[in-house]
Amino acid sequence: MLGSLPSFARLVAELGKLPGIGGKTATRLAFHLLRRPQEDVEALAAALIAMKQNLSFCRRCFNISEGEYCCICLNTSRDESCLCVVQEPQDLIAIERSHGYRGRYHVLHGALSPLDGIGPEDLKIPQLLARLKNEEIVEVVVATSFTVEGEATALYLARLLKETGLRVTRPAHGIPMGSDLEYIDSATVQLAIDSRREL
Amino acid sequence: MLGSLPSFARLVAELGKLPGIGGKTATRLAFHLLRRPQEDVEALAAALIAMKQNLSFCRRCFNISEGEYCCICLNTSRDESCLCVVQEPQDLIAIERSHGYRGRYHVLHGALSPLDGIGPEDLKIPQLLARLKNEEIVEVVVATSFTVEGEATALYLARLLKETGLRVTRPAHGIPMGSDLEYIDSATVQLAIDSRREL
Repeated sequence: MLGSLPSFARLVAELGKLPGIGGKTATRLAFHLLRRPQEDVEALAAALIAMKQNLSFCRRCFNISEGEYCCICLNTSRDESCLCVVQEPQDLIAIERSHGYRGRYHVLHGALSPLDGIGPEDLKIPQLLARLKNEEIVEVVVATSFTVEGEATALYLARLLKETGLRVTRPAHGIPMGSDLEYIDSATVQLAIDSRREL
Repeated sequence: MLGSLPSFARLVAELGKLPGIGGKTATRLAFHLLRRPQEDVEALAAALIAMKQNLSFCRRCFNISEGEYCCICLNTSRDESCLCVVQEPQDLIAIERSHGYRGRYHVLHGALSPLDGIGPEDLKIPQLLARLKNEEIVEVVVATSFTVEGEATALYLARLLKETGLRVTRPAHGIPMGSDLEYIDSATVQLAIDSRREL
């Protein structure tokens, strides 16, 4: 049946390329779009094209940006002496959402992963070192993910940056807010107890 | 942060309008598309536009079609005396996939639902009655869904069509192939036992 509907089959195939969207979901989405008014479908197509045309990465920190520099690099009220290193723009957004940080960022666009052949040159690490030389930075917060690759990247950066005499920090491990000790993995509980603070 | 990225925020908003895609999934999809080459994103946008431009509904049976009439209505080797009534084009595709039916179809585009104000005039029921008058149909297979609305629609059609002297049938209820009796709901088991056949 779908063989005689090339436009429909093509849309299903294109939607099926999106992550987490299989054949059944793609067909369901295509049927939904078929029933929507033409304007709605055109709005989605236009949003796709506009995003691709307007968005690029900040020249300084590699955050996503609609201009040459991102809104954080352009914001003169941010603390220029503190630089937070993250893996992906998503991580930057998560930190911004917390309102817990007022410095600048540097987005690596990945983590070290020797098994996948990803070394320092494949990330924005050379650009980070150049910034540390040219900008007046006092502290680097290494906020790469708390996964094997993220921890390895953090260790690599810590060793590299120690030579520069900068203060190198990492967000604390511990029990997340509002959680039950019962349901937290033992490694986290152990780290939280090791780093216990005076009340 | 996203406030300073209108193109990105707009794409997230448009993706979030799709059924089953919430804010987090929409953001994840937008980040995925941001990393894809421009051609891939343009291919998706073009597929959306092409689907909307090329697809419409068959003039006779209201199946989705790229021309005036759908491929099933145009296929002269199909049995013209048998008409299968379904709720949605998806149901038609499911029946075609089974290769169990060689007749024609009629797509109602919904089911009766008095609570939602959906009556016979809101479905393709007048068009169905016109076809029964003008075409040489002997049997109508009412294959609306086995839900409350689908069953109500089937009953309504059965009553309406009985007067025309046509043979009106409905696909059998029973235990699905390859399933364990243990996990089938009792209503289905009861119906399957009531409709038991000689071996």
